[in-house]
Amino acid sequence: MLPISKRGEQMPPSPIRKLVPYAEAAKKRGTKVFHLNIGQPDIETPAAILDAVRNADIKVLEYSHSAGNESYRRKLTQYYKKVGIDVNYDQILITTGGSEAIMFGFFTCFNPGDEVIIPEPFYANYNGFACAAGVNVVPITSHIENSFALPDIEEFEKVITAKTKAIIICSPNNPTGYLYSKEEMLKLKDVCVKHNLYLFSDEAYREFCYDGDYVSALHIEGLEQHVVLMDTISKRYSACGARLGALVTKNKAVYDAAMKFAQARLSPPGLAQIMGEAAVDLPDAYFDAPKAEYLSRRNLLVKRLNAMPGVFCPNPGGAFYAMAKLPIDDSDRFCQWLLESFSHNGQTIMLAPATGFYGTAGLGKNEVRLAYVLNLDALDKAMDCLEEALKVYPGKTN
Amino acid sequence: MLPISKRGEQMPPSPIRKLVPYAEAAKKRGTKVFHLNIGQPDIETPAAILDAVRNADIKVLEYSHSAGNESYRRKLTQYYKKVGIDVNYDQILITTGGSEAIMFGFFTCFNPGDEVIIPEPFYANYNGFACAAGVNVVPITSHIENSFALPDIEEFEKVITAKTKAIIICSPNNPTGYLYSKEEMLKLKDVCVKHNLYLFSDEAYREFCYDGDYVSALHIEGLEQHVVLMDTISKRYSACGARLGALVTKNKAVYDAAMKFAQARLSPPGLAQIMGEAAVDLPDAYFDAPKAEYLSRRNLLVKRLNAMPGVFCPNPGGAFYAMAKLPIDDSDRFCQWLLESFSHNGQTIMLAPATGFYGTAGLGKNEVRLAYVLNLDALDKAMDCLEEALKVYPGKTN
Repeated sequence: MLPISKRGEQMPPSPIRKLVPYAEAAKKRGTKVFHLNIGQPDIETPAAILDAVRNADIKVLEYSHSAGNESYRRKLTQYYKKVGIDVNYDQILITTGGSEAIMFGFFTCFNPGDEVIIPEPFYANYNGFACAAGVNVVPITSHIENSFALPDIEEFEKVITAKTKAIIICSPNNPTGYLYSKEEMLKLKDVCVKHNLYLFSDEAYREFCYDGDYVSALHIEGLEQHVVLMDTISKRYSACGARLGALVTKNKAVYDAAMKFAQARLSPPGLAQIMGEAAVDLPDAYFDAPKAEYLSRRNLLVKRLNAMPGVFCPNPGGAFYAMAKLPIDDSDRFCQWLLESFSHNGQTIMLAPATGFYGTAGLGKNEVRLAYVLNLDALDKAMDCLEEALKVYPGKTN
Repeated sequence: MLPISKRGEQMPPSPIRKLVPYAEAAKKRGTKVFHLNIGQPDIETPAAILDAVRNADIKVLEYSHSAGNESYRRKLTQYYKKVGIDVNYDQILITTGGSEAIMFGFFTCFNPGDEVIIPEPFYANYNGFACAAGVNVVPITSHIENSFALPDIEEFEKVITAKTKAIIICSPNNPTGYLYSKEEMLKLKDVCVKHNLYLFSDEAYREFCYDGDYVSALHIEGLEQHVVLMDTISKRYSACGARLGALVTKNKAVYDAAMKFAQARLSPPGLAQIMGEAAVDLPDAYFDAPKAEYLSRRNLLVKRLNAMPGVFCPNPGGAFYAMAKLPIDDSDRFCQWLLESFSHNGQTIMLAPATGFYGTAGLGKNEVRLAYVLNLDALDKAMDCLEEALKVYPGKTN
């Protein structure tokens, strides 16, 4: 028997995808499943950016520059300028999805055994990249009662050690939808500067802020050398399958080292870069419709949830996720039960148990994440399902 | 000053790309540069597979399955059957280029501090992935005098330790073009079985075998559980920029662990998968033309090289690379000199110094790699340049 590596054993399976077999079985039984479990937007990918690929005159689909086509990087500086981020094209490294930006950042900045602090609940795949890089995630709990706002800085101070290398944030947040304020960002700046920490900033959802202004880590003066910005076109343009992202940093040492990892994998996807470049030319008004659509959905979702007995859902300021506290014993069991044992008018709902988003064992057992990536009608029906389910779930707690 | 990680510091820069600034300067001076330095084929990407993307009806470009679209994986089993490899679709994990297959394989099978044996000269980017994974590369020297055939198995036995986890091969080989025979593959089998080692087999060039038959690691009976096959459509269909590859293994534990790394990065590129799926439907005769073209080029290249005084180039059995021994003091200096200080009829040639392909310091100083990715006329002119250059190079050794 040939041995698998320790990290191969320890690598966490996707907490979201583990329910997939139950969803498939439900569908085979003829039950309609509303998918609120995964951040796959239903908004159409802009036809103009797909057309750019269709109309591209390609004879040989060649490797691009390892940092991405220079024309695309130069164009992206225009996009970033519009969102208040002033960067040069040689501070942008095009990656294969935001995922690769996370990976390059981790491998570039952290040694095995280093620690990174992440406010929990957090995007579960940070765990996977931390495992691959041999890095230990130190969670700081944020709380549903105050909408998952930034935990007190004292909580950070308590866990900072000589091995702490970075704080990782995501705003607007996946999974909570919380949008950090300027004040919160300034607090993060202070602690990063004081302890010489990187601030990894996942800004995948910046276009979708409903209450309050988007604040980028690169908006904060004095933090320039600390910021590793992780970006993607996946959510911005409903183009998750393109696999196109970017690592943006003004720290030249980080950029140069990340570039060596980029060279080893040769180049980011070529056709996707054509899409990305065309996307910068979309009219500014492009975002109005998806943003308005998401906002209507959020309002419906939050209203429906909070009208259910024993349910609490803070109003998320951005992204397209909401976290809700439910009167249930165990969110993993509940989400599986929804697929295995429940249906309402031949329909059920697939949710993400919040346990997968917490680093602290035992947290999230009465919380679920809902991605509002369905139209209003479907979302309303999905809420009907949830409402009925909570009436009959055997593990109900009140 | 924020510190970069040790692996970020140690990560090797691309040895091929370091000459790029000199090539750019030469072009700015008006010198035509023949690029024989990089394995970017000039053969056109089949129009049919680009058309498949152009004609695809895409509303939302969604994440695919983390292992790749099931339809593509099922289709690929037909392709593999044609090349004598009998695999199920759930033994194929679609990756972002062959690069990601290498990465997943390394992270899945090796612990930091483990050793992998690679016959040198070898594909330089193995070094980068080894560095990222914390793995030590142990080179075994193959020699230009016998065409870079597999070194004696005793050489492997000498360096195998408790930390040795795998042997990595590439056949037909980049950078040497050498094609392992069935006998050589059986020798590798014996040593892998005896010492319980993985055999990582990079088969990026299997379509391009000119003398002798292609032998896959998965053709070898009794080796099934040992083989991690790393594949790509980059060279097969001249589609390097698509970034689409595959990790193929019959070892379920390896597959399942690699799948967890795949889930962390969500999915491989979506548009490229449409290309890959369409490629399986290309007529079998598709490969005839590119293969005949490469063969003509190889014959011209090898003939021209061996006709130059003091030059020796073994006849490569496959791929589109040749290694040549030149009467020079230092291949890095020579390749830079070609770009900086030489031209012939306003033309010069860009080559890859062989030093970057050896793990043993000091080897390859009088060798270069030539990628025959130019048409016959350009290749002939490039050889004129080299011939003239060798007459006047100040560091000539005989």
